[in-house]
Amino acid sequence: MMRSSLSFMRIERVLISHFHGDHFLGLPGLLQSMAFNGRSEPLSVYGPHGIKRLVETIGNLGYFPHTFPIRVVEMGDKTEVDCGDYWLRTRAVDHLVPTLAYCLEEKARQGKFDVQKAHQLGIPEGPLYRRLQGGKTITVEGKKIKPEAVVGPPRPGRKVVYSGDTRPTQAVVDLAMGCDVLIHDATMESDLERQCFEYGHSTPAQAAQIAVKSKAKMLFLTHISPRYDEKGKAKRLEDEARAVFPHSVIARDLLEYVVKYAE
Amino acid sequence: MMRSSLSFMRIERVLISHFHGDHFLGLPGLLQSMAFNGRSEPLSVYGPHGIKRLVETIGNLGYFPHTFPIRVVEMGDKTEVDCGDYWLRTRAVDHLVPTLAYCLEEKARQGKFDVQKAHQLGIPEGPLYRRLQGGKTITVEGKKIKPEAVVGPPRPGRKVVYSGDTRPTQAVVDLAMGCDVLIHDATMESDLERQCFEYGHSTPAQAAQIAVKSKAKMLFLTHISPRYDEKGKAKRLEDEARAVFPHSVIARDLLEYVVKYAE
Repeated sequence: MMRSSLSFMRIERVLISHFHGDHFLGLPGLLQSMAFNGRSEPLSVYGPHGIKRLVETIGNLGYFPHTFPIRVVEMGDKTEVDCGDYWLRTRAVDHLVPTLAYCLEEKARQGKFDVQKAHQLGIPEGPLYRRLQGGKTITVEGKKIKPEAVVGPPRPGRKVVYSGDTRPTQAVVDLAMGCDVLIHDATMESDLERQCFEYGHSTPAQAAQIAVKSKAKMLFLTHISPRYDEKGKAKRLEDEARAVFPHSVIARDLLEYVVKYAE
Repeated sequence: MMRSSLSFMRIERVLISHFHGDHFLGLPGLLQSMAFNGRSEPLSVYGPHGIKRLVETIGNLGYFPHTFPIRVVEMGDKTEVDCGDYWLRTRAVDHLVPTLAYCLEEKARQGKFDVQKAHQLGIPEGPLYRRLQGGKTITVEGKKIKPEAVVGPPRPGRKVVYSGDTRPTQAVVDLAMGCDVLIHDATMESDLERQCFEYGHSTPAQAAQIAVKSKAKMLFLTHISPRYDEKGKAKRLEDEARAVFPHSVIARDLLEYVVKYAE
């Protein structure tokens, strides 16, 4: 995280999928680093049932300076949290232990303001623009002008879905419906599908099927087994997914992707 | 560690200096990785008082498969443990919280066997060599031959001392006396000596003084403050140490150094 373009001090929320070591053991170091750097702003930590006890335990590891409040929220299946600009939603997924997938969906944004139209209607720039943007009807030279005349329909926000470890499941399809980005488990190639299922994971083809069914715009494959570390091997997983869903990409450390608004 | 030439699965002992996050929070991930890779061999973990509770707590974080036994040893000042080929020794050092420095000292090795001398004395190669090497007196053609005649004096083993965070202290000088390698805290340059002391750390010059006093052969400076991350800045710390003790080197991630036997 220190090598990324993000500042770990500016994180406001941490989402934990489940309590396998490779999915939460970065938390103790992150919390202590925040404290050592003198954080005072509160932090929210979300996770399955047990996250409260976990964060409490972490706070008792060694000498932990408690410089900032931690708000811990235990999430179940279909939990919804209002995060101001966006909604945070969960679904329970299908892994060996209780595991959550998370959806971050921005609230709809205000419609586009048509400046040209406003000019044509003779509305002077300034406070009247803001009244219309705020949904109010105004009067210009005795004429009533409704906001719909110059403000377009609300535009949908962006939607990103992260599933931790999971077998392919309808729960993710439901959660990810129409999302801009789906981040999905793709641990092993299809020739190991049986073993993959046994360990509670998905193949690239299965992940791609979820992307197709949920009409996602983009699929990032994660949690690739170390058996594919060798150069070229991971590419095979990408090819397997692309045969089903063309917009599939194998995630790599520090990969950045800008999620654009739909036109 | 995965990027190093060492296998984390082959670790037999872990030494913890103290319970500040940057000095022990690698332990949960290490232990879980060992377990997930199916380790069955026991592991020993050493640390200051509190290490037992810490390892127990770590074992209760999330779903931790207990595939191997962990032997936890609480160490005090001047604790000595026989590790077979070497001794493990501690000294309490001077930091903000209870902190240990560790010395690993190989036991003396057998003296050199002088093959030429053995030939001259008419000793036939084979079992008699081994008897002499084992310290036994032998008889060849009626003549008694003592081991000292062909086996040199015991040769000292190698000695490596690691001090975690510490202000300069005589305890490290004592522990490191005559060592091959001393690894020492050198957090800030001398112009910040006061601040450095306040935080319980040493300057490169202070670390180098410890190396001089203990007659160490080699000094590695560690725990460099991130304020010196910029290129060239860390070199200044090395220069500061070298002005006092020429064989000073700033440690960097994945640095390897072969500790040779004294001639």
